[in-house]
Amino acid sequence: MTTTLASGTDLFARHRETLDRAREAIRTRAYFSAYPESASGKVYGETAAAEGKAAFEARLGRPFVLDQPSTGESTSTERSPYGLPLAVQYQAADVDALLAAAVQAGAAWGAASPEERVGVALEALARINARSFEMAHAAMHTTGQAFMMAFQAAGPHAQDRALEAIPYAYNEMARIPASVTWEKPGKETLRVAKTFRVVPRGIDLTIGCSTFPTWNAYPGLFASLVTGNAVVVKPHPQAVLPLAITVEVLQGVLREAGFDPRVVTLAVDTSDRPLAKVLAQRSEVALIDYTGSTGFGDWLEENAHALVFTEKAGVNGVVIDSTNDLSGMARNLAMSLSLYSGQMCTTPQNLFVPKDGIVAGGERVSFDAVVGALVGAIDALLGEPARAAGVLGAIATDATLHRIDEENAKPGVVRKSAAAANPEFPDARVRTPLVAVVDAADRERYEREAFGPIAFVVRTADTDESLRLATGEAQREGAITAIVHTTDDAVLAKAEGWARDGKVNLAVNFTGSLLVNQSAAFSDYHVTGGNPSGNASLTDAAFVANRFRVIETRTPLA
Amino acid sequence: MTTTLASGTDLFARHRETLDRAREAIRTRAYFSAYPESASGKVYGETAAAEGKAAFEARLGRPFVLDQPSTGESTSTERSPYGLPLAVQYQAADVDALLAAAVQAGAAWGAASPEERVGVALEALARINARSFEMAHAAMHTTGQAFMMAFQAAGPHAQDRALEAIPYAYNEMARIPASVTWEKPGKETLRVAKTFRVVPRGIDLTIGCSTFPTWNAYPGLFASLVTGNAVVVKPHPQAVLPLAITVEVLQGVLREAGFDPRVVTLAVDTSDRPLAKVLAQRSEVALIDYTGSTGFGDWLEENAHALVFTEKAGVNGVVIDSTNDLSGMARNLAMSLSLYSGQMCTTPQNLFVPKDGIVAGGERVSFDAVVGALVGAIDALLGEPARAAGVLGAIATDATLHRIDEENAKPGVVRKSAAAANPEFPDARVRTPLVAVVDAADRERYEREAFGPIAFVVRTADTDESLRLATGEAQREGAITAIVHTTDDAVLAKAEGWARDGKVNLAVNFTGSLLVNQSAAFSDYHVTGGNPSGNASLTDAAFVANRFRVIETRTPLA
Repeated sequence: MTTTLASGTDLFARHRETLDRAREAIRTRAYFSAYPESASGKVYGETAAAEGKAAFEARLGRPFVLDQPSTGESTSTERSPYGLPLAVQYQAADVDALLAAAVQAGAAWGAASPEERVGVALEALARINARSFEMAHAAMHTTGQAFMMAFQAAGPHAQDRALEAIPYAYNEMARIPASVTWEKPGKETLRVAKTFRVVPRGIDLTIGCSTFPTWNAYPGLFASLVTGNAVVVKPHPQAVLPLAITVEVLQGVLREAGFDPRVVTLAVDTSDRPLAKVLAQRSEVALIDYTGSTGFGDWLEENAHALVFTEKAGVNGVVIDSTNDLSGMARNLAMSLSLYSGQMCTTPQNLFVPKDGIVAGGERVSFDAVVGALVGAIDALLGEPARAAGVLGAIATDATLHRIDEENAKPGVVRKSAAAANPEFPDARVRTPLVAVVDAADRERYEREAFGPIAFVVRTADTDESLRLATGEAQREGAITAIVHTTDDAVLAKAEGWARDGKVNLAVNFTGSLLVNQSAAFSDYHVTGGNPSGNASLTDAAFVANRFRVIETRTPLA
Repeated sequence: MTTTLASGTDLFARHRETLDRAREAIRTRAYFSAYPESASGKVYGETAAAEGKAAFEARLGRPFVLDQPSTGESTSTERSPYGLPLAVQYQAADVDALLAAAVQAGAAWGAASPEERVGVALEALARINARSFEMAHAAMHTTGQAFMMAFQAAGPHAQDRALEAIPYAYNEMARIPASVTWEKPGKETLRVAKTFRVVPRGIDLTIGCSTFPTWNAYPGLFASLVTGNAVVVKPHPQAVLPLAITVEVLQGVLREAGFDPRVVTLAVDTSDRPLAKVLAQRSEVALIDYTGSTGFGDWLEENAHALVFTEKAGVNGVVIDSTNDLSGMARNLAMSLSLYSGQMCTTPQNLFVPKDGIVAGGERVSFDAVVGALVGAIDALLGEPARAAGVLGAIATDATLHRIDEENAKPGVVRKSAAAANPEFPDARVRTPLVAVVDAADRERYEREAFGPIAFVVRTADTDESLRLATGEAQREGAITAIVHTTDDAVLAKAEGWARDGKVNLAVNFTGSLLVNQSAAFSDYHVTGGNPSGNASLTDAAFVANRFRVIETRTPLA
């Protein structure tokens, strides 16, 4: 163990104000952000951008060494969707040794005070924030996000989401008094000294995804850490680097604060020899945080003995009934469908439009004209190559490319997905959104997740049918977002019924710059945890309160 | 729907002070009780005892009719352990119709405000409290508890435990603002109206047990109700009446407050045709609260798609290292083992004593002398028949009687369990505690739950071995209570390690009137939820926070 440079208690004092501001933010759910989303030199320093890029480039083709047991072999599974050679080499995980190290490191970590652990976590977040440019390049070249999106989503927005989870967890622990004297009145007063100690559950296994490796992993990772659990991070083979950097920073702060750095470790695997199932079935693993495909998420929910928090996938609906701003609606939807080529769990998929069209600005607009407005808005958005590249990013996985090719060949496609050029990265694999028109009866085609830049306009009898179909698919397949466009209060009330019965958050008349894809830390609940798209919400009390237990001692007093 | 006599809002105002006092109590965890545990006429009224007994007697041999669908058949499965004929006839549940009614009734209940629901729940608790004498007889003649214990445990103590769960759940809901205006600063300020609505998960299935039908069922039942879920109560066939009375009171208050009374219904089954598994697998059931055997609890945890809260069984340990009060220790243990004939999930089972004996009051006392002190204390406690009857109660089930007979025939028994007379009820089936001495190596015999008046004194090499065995059995088999007797701070520290690693609450040097069996609402966490004896604790935030979800709407403002 190295010398302690700053104890957890020191770090808690250093970041106390940030914690208190975050506590207030989760209480009010008004706007708050602790980590600036502007990548300007004024905020992060004039040299930050260049230094971050250099730090990223220095990783390439080199071993990435963390303080943890390994088999001695190395793995290298990432491929940049922009065509840049990466070849970062990670230590292959030795599962037995890794879990033994986590158990060992976890003992002192679990015995530390909540304040010490919160101090370490907040210091790590501050250091991760300082490395947001390096993180941006790491996220861009693993997920395929465009640079600015990668900067924000993998950087400050992910850090805010982590910061949100910490006061939730801290509040739950702080509500429990450390000790009380219990006095029961009676003929003879009964006096008992009671102590209440927060103890961790065990090891948390955090399973990352390929598209938002930090944003989705941080809430569970940080909530488990501050409640005293050691964490083994199992990244997606396509998006290791952002989480490897995260673990490196955490290990550094742990070491400096006098803890065993192996409180947090990285378990890298390959598609050929996946480790998630192996780790999930180990008795040392008491908590699992998972973001990824529905299939494996369902398996975890049904088979793991650990307490499981999942974000899987859904089929997101848009019910278009009427609008006062057809072009604003079309522009907003075009951006939602195009952003990061539809590779967001929040991207709309099915747009329900009545066959007789809608009323827009007091005029009746035909079904075909609504479709035309949408397609026209997508074309306009992506007409300029540099802007298109900044919106679309690149396609993360081969599976999504194949899915696009398959859908392009099916009937009803009114806008084909096509390759597009990226002026900066000639080898980037970029695809524009596909729009297909289908009938309401064609549920087999549209009522399953079509991940990527694929949207269906579903022709319905009327808005009542639209709402019925949207509710049913949220209940059966899950949904993470829902949009209604209507100028009619009666329809709005019915749409609120869709949200209630489908247990999905609802966006009403989004026609401006706010996108349904975006979910703001401290204010928006991401995933409700009430439909098949996931069993947990980021972040609420249920997400944190069961990550620790309370052990009580009673000692009668004379 | 009948006329509303007092709305939920009225009832909330009526009971606001009780709610606030309970909120303060869970914050401080100091002593609090809202419902008097004294059965005196001064508290409940001079006629309450006689009226309660008459009300109970008026139930016998008659149909018990609730406002809910039924097959038309009736069932009668209860048998008084005191030999009194009961023959209360309950409506057999029609599962399809019952769940359909619960779904229908649940719609308006889920749409009501948290305050309305809390008002209904608190009014029901006040009325249940007024019927504590009727409840006492109902509990006594189904569970076998002696009258005073039945009065307290099934009456005021259960009511306090219900009242504890309500502010926990209410606090979680009240922390979520109903609406906010979210303003993100920037070149153009983004303004969004957000609403947050608490919605229930669905139907809660509350599965009751045979020994503490109300005490164990109330926390989940009331937590689920105030969070908006309809509840189907499935009582143990041996202990229906206490929960039937509860449902009757709840239905009455619901009806008067303008709600469909079928928000709460009773699903009575028989041992031949059990309904728990059938109900647990229904898609309408989103929450399950279970108290009972480990086997079925494990099955629920592994197989139910609903969110499951369990209290199963454990093997409770006592580590005897040293004491300043040998006779106080022996008397306290004798009472803990004898109370309700050991039919409590909190009753100690395995008493670990070093083979070379212990130091008591500065003197070395041999192993045999420690055993002798314990057996002597049990004999002294039960020497007087009327007092013995008040302590022991009666044996609830045939399975426990058979278990006693089997253990009586095994080697090492130093105190045989024997039948005992009950002066008031000649047909009562009463058994005194059995004590057997076994070796540490004989784990197959003592390291499984021996429910009922059966205790093992386990001869160990030393206290370190005692602690190691006690920790292991808590981890493998689960434990709900743990006792250490020691005068040595180093041993006490190690015992705290047992509590931490076995995730079990610890009682230290209990030599007076406080028993490890007792768990006080508002202060003691009953079951930690961290070992195999159960996955939930009564009551903490984790017990309530996931019984509802939050649905958000976002509407951009101009």
